[in-house]
Amino acid sequence: MKAHPEGLQLIKRTASPQLIQELRTRFSDRLSIGQAVRDQHGSDESPYKTMAPDAVVFALSTAEVAEIVKLCSQYNTPVIAFGAGSSIEGHILAVEGGITIDVSRMNAVLSVNSDDLTATVQTGVTRKQLNNEIKDTGLFFPIDPGADATIGGMTATRASGTNAVRYGTMRENVLGLTVVTADGKVIRTSRRAKKSSAGYDLTRLLVGSEGTLGIITEVTVRLYPQPEAVSGAVCSFSDVQSAVNTVIQTIQLGVPIARAELLDALTVKAVNLHSKTTLKEQPMLFLEFHGSPASVNEQSQTVQDIARENGGQDFEWATNPEDRSRLWNARHTAFFACLQLKAGSRAFTTDACVPISRLAECIKETVEDTANSTLPCPIFGHVGDGNFHCVIVANPNDPLEMEEAERLNQRVMQRALNMDGTCTGEHGVGLHKMGLLIDEHGEDAVELMRRIKLAFDPKNILNPGKIIRV
Amino acid sequence: MKAHPEGLQLIKRTASPQLIQELRTRFSDRLSIGQAVRDQHGSDESPYKTMAPDAVVFALSTAEVAEIVKLCSQYNTPVIAFGAGSSIEGHILAVEGGITIDVSRMNAVLSVNSDDLTATVQTGVTRKQLNNEIKDTGLFFPIDPGADATIGGMTATRASGTNAVRYGTMRENVLGLTVVTADGKVIRTSRRAKKSSAGYDLTRLLVGSEGTLGIITEVTVRLYPQPEAVSGAVCSFSDVQSAVNTVIQTIQLGVPIARAELLDALTVKAVNLHSKTTLKEQPMLFLEFHGSPASVNEQSQTVQDIARENGGQDFEWATNPEDRSRLWNARHTAFFACLQLKAGSRAFTTDACVPISRLAECIKETVEDTANSTLPCPIFGHVGDGNFHCVIVANPNDPLEMEEAERLNQRVMQRALNMDGTCTGEHGVGLHKMGLLIDEHGEDAVELMRRIKLAFDPKNILNPGKIIRV
Repeated sequence: MKAHPEGLQLIKRTASPQLIQELRTRFSDRLSIGQAVRDQHGSDESPYKTMAPDAVVFALSTAEVAEIVKLCSQYNTPVIAFGAGSSIEGHILAVEGGITIDVSRMNAVLSVNSDDLTATVQTGVTRKQLNNEIKDTGLFFPIDPGADATIGGMTATRASGTNAVRYGTMRENVLGLTVVTADGKVIRTSRRAKKSSAGYDLTRLLVGSEGTLGIITEVTVRLYPQPEAVSGAVCSFSDVQSAVNTVIQTIQLGVPIARAELLDALTVKAVNLHSKTTLKEQPMLFLEFHGSPASVNEQSQTVQDIARENGGQDFEWATNPEDRSRLWNARHTAFFACLQLKAGSRAFTTDACVPISRLAECIKETVEDTANSTLPCPIFGHVGDGNFHCVIVANPNDPLEMEEAERLNQRVMQRALNMDGTCTGEHGVGLHKMGLLIDEHGEDAVELMRRIKLAFDPKNILNPGKIIRV
Repeated sequence: MKAHPEGLQLIKRTASPQLIQELRTRFSDRLSIGQAVRDQHGSDESPYKTMAPDAVVFALSTAEVAEIVKLCSQYNTPVIAFGAGSSIEGHILAVEGGITIDVSRMNAVLSVNSDDLTATVQTGVTRKQLNNEIKDTGLFFPIDPGADATIGGMTATRASGTNAVRYGTMRENVLGLTVVTADGKVIRTSRRAKKSSAGYDLTRLLVGSEGTLGIITEVTVRLYPQPEAVSGAVCSFSDVQSAVNTVIQTIQLGVPIARAELLDALTVKAVNLHSKTTLKEQPMLFLEFHGSPASVNEQSQTVQDIARENGGQDFEWATNPEDRSRLWNARHTAFFACLQLKAGSRAFTTDACVPISRLAECIKETVEDTANSTLPCPIFGHVGDGNFHCVIVANPNDPLEMEEAERLNQRVMQRALNMDGTCTGEHGVGLHKMGLLIDEHGEDAVELMRRIKLAFDPKNILNPGKIIRV
C-alpha cells in the first residue's frame, strides 16, 4: 500500500526540536514523545498502517488548544485533533508528521439546559458519557454511530448512525461550536437560539470538516425528551428488496420510525456466530419505535401490516429494556462480528448512501458484484437514510487481498455515485476519498472547497492530506 | 435615512452602456431598462427607499443566469437575483447599481420523487405553487414563511415560519442546490442522498447566503407525507409567560406539535379589526397538530391539559379544513393587520430569536420597552423556536418616527443578543444588520465569513453591500 492511499506526494513537516522543546516547557509531562503513545495516536479503526505524529499533547482547555495551534502555526507544523480514535477513514493519521492534540481529557459536560433541550460539552465527551450524565433530566442525545465516539469527533465527521432516520445527523443536531482557528484564535460559530439567519452558516461548514478548517473544542447539541415508550422488533424477509420496500412504505405513510436497520443474510450469520444468537439467516430488519404508549402501539401495528404485505416473517417484539438491549447489542456488534468472519482481518467499511428509491438496486448489484470474490462482504445499514455498509474483510498483510478489497470498495462507491448518491453517508472523506470527492461534486465545486480551505488555513497546517488536495 | 442603512460608503458601479448593449443583443426584450420595471425590482417589503438596478433581465434557465453573471463579471458590475420581492430586509435593493436577474419565470417543478420524498424545482417556483403541483402525490412542502416567496429566495434567506417547530427550516429541508458562481460556472452542491459526509457542506453554506456567494438556480427540497389528520386550536392566556410555558412544557413532553404561534393582545386586536374576527384581546396561542387521527387526538388532549394548568381559557377547536383555514388566515394576515394599525405606514419587522427559556422574559422586556412609544408595536411569533416579531409601525415620511422605530428595533435585537439569541431568526441580515452580525458572532468569526465571501467572489459583484463589508 502507498504511504498515502490517494498517492499524494507527502512532504514530511516533522516537528522541530525547538517546537517540541517549547511544548515541553509549557505542558511538561502532558507532552509525550514515546513511541507507544505516538503509535496509538497514529492509528484508528481504518485498514491503514500507523502513521505516528512526532509528539502528542494532552490538552485540558480551549485556551491550551489555541496555544498549541499558535505554536504549530509559527513553526509551520501540522496539527491534528484526536478524540476516541474510532475513525474508520484514517482521519487522525499524521501523514505529514506534526503534533497531535489529544482532547480526550477535555471531557466535561459544561451545561445542560432542560427548558431549551440543549447541552454544551467539551469536545472529548463521548456520546455514552453524555447520555449517562443527563439521564436524570429525562432527556437524551440520540446520535448513535455505533462506536462510543467523542462528540467532537462525531461533529468533525458529520456522523449519524441508527437513529438518524428520525432524529437527523450531526448536521441537524449541532447548534453551535467553539473552534480554534488556524492562527490560534477562538471563535464561537453561533448563539444558542434554535435557528438563525445571521450570516454564513459557519456551524454547518465546520460540521464535517474533519479537523481541516479548525479544531472543535466545545459543542452545543440538541437534546430530546426520552420517549415515554419504546418498542423494538425484528423481522425476516426472503430478499433485500422486500425489506427495503417495507421501510420506504413506512416512511411514506409518515410513521415516525426511530430506527430501521437492514442486515443481509451473511451479516446475520456473522452475528449468530459472534453473539451466539439463533436469528434466521435471511435479510432482516431491526426496527424501533418511540412515542407515547398508544402511538408506539399504533406505529408498530402499521409497520407489522406493511411488513406482512411485503412477505415479512417471524416478527419478534421486544418491549422491555433487557430484550431490546439484547437485540440492539446484536446489531451493534455486527461490524466486529463481520471482522471475525476471517481471522486477523481488517475491513474496508464502504459507506454508500443513495436516494432510498435506488437502495435495493444498489445493494442487489453490490451483492452480485461481491459474490464471486474470495473475500467475505457482509452488508448492513441504515435503510431509512439509504445508507449501507458493505464490509469488505481482508488480511492487511496480504497485498493481493488488499488490492481486491480496494477494487471492490471503489466499485461500491462508484455505484453509489451513479445512482445520484454519495461516496460517504456518515464516515467522512478522510485519507481515502479525495479523488471520489471530485467525482461526486465536480472539479468546480471542489475548487470552491479548496478556496475555503486556503481562506481558513493558508499554511495548510490543520490535518493536512485529508479531504482536499491543496 | 442614509442611502445605506449601515452608513456604508457606496461606490456606484453603474452598468456601462456596453454591458447593457451586450445584454440587449443576447436577451432582446427580456432586458428591460424602463423606470417602472427597474423601480419594481429595487424595492421590497422592507421600510427602505427604492434603489433601482440599471437594468433587469428576465432569465429562463441556469445557462442564461450563468451567461449574465459572466458578462457582469467581465464588466465588474453588481448582479442581484430577484424572485418574489417579498424580502423585508432590503435584500434585493441595488445599492451599488448593476443588473438584476429576475428569476420568476424560472418556475418549473423539474422532478418529484415520491419514494425519496424529494422534489427539484427551479429557483422561481413559489411555495404555494409547489404545494399545488404536488398535492396529488400525497406529499407536501412544509416551510411557510407567510409570504408566497420563491423557493430560491427562501433558500437564500434561510427562511422558516410557522411549521419550523416540527419540520425545521430551509437549513434542514434543502438537500442540494444548483448554483451559478461569481465567475459564471455552474456547480451542484450535493447529490440527492438524504445525508452525506463528503466534504465541506456547500449546500448549507449557500443556504442563507443572500445571493452574496452564488446565484441559486435550482433547489432540491425534502417533502413530507400529508398528515392523515390535522387539528387546529386557539387558546387565550392572561399573560405571555403562561402561553410560552404551555409551549415549553409541550415540547419537553415530546409532543410533536406542528405549529405553535403566539399573538399578543395588540396583535389580536389588529387581527380583529382587519379580519372582522371576534377573538378575545388577550395573549393567544394558535396551535396545530399533525398525525394519525389517534395521535392527533392524543396530542390535542395533552396540550389542552397543559394549557389549562397554565390558565389557558376558551379553547376553540378547528378540525375541518374550512375552520382551520379561517383560523390560519387570521394568523397569516397578522403582519398586514398590524400595518393597518396606522394608515400609510411601513414596518420594522424585528426578528429576535432566543433560547426558548428566555423567550417570555425577552417578550416581556420588549413590551415594557415599547409601551411608552407613540408607535404601535404588536408582537407575534413562532414560540416553539423562540422566535418573535415585534412589528414597529411607523410613517416612512416622518423622520422622527423612523428614528424612533430604528431605536426600538436596535434595542430589540441587542436584547436578543444579550440572551444568547440571534438578531435574525428567519429574515436574514440584508442591508441592515451588518453591524449586529459582528455583535452576534464577534470580529474573528465575521472575518472568516469575509474570507469566504472573497474566496467565492473576489470582485464583490454578487449582491454587494449585504451581510458582509468587504
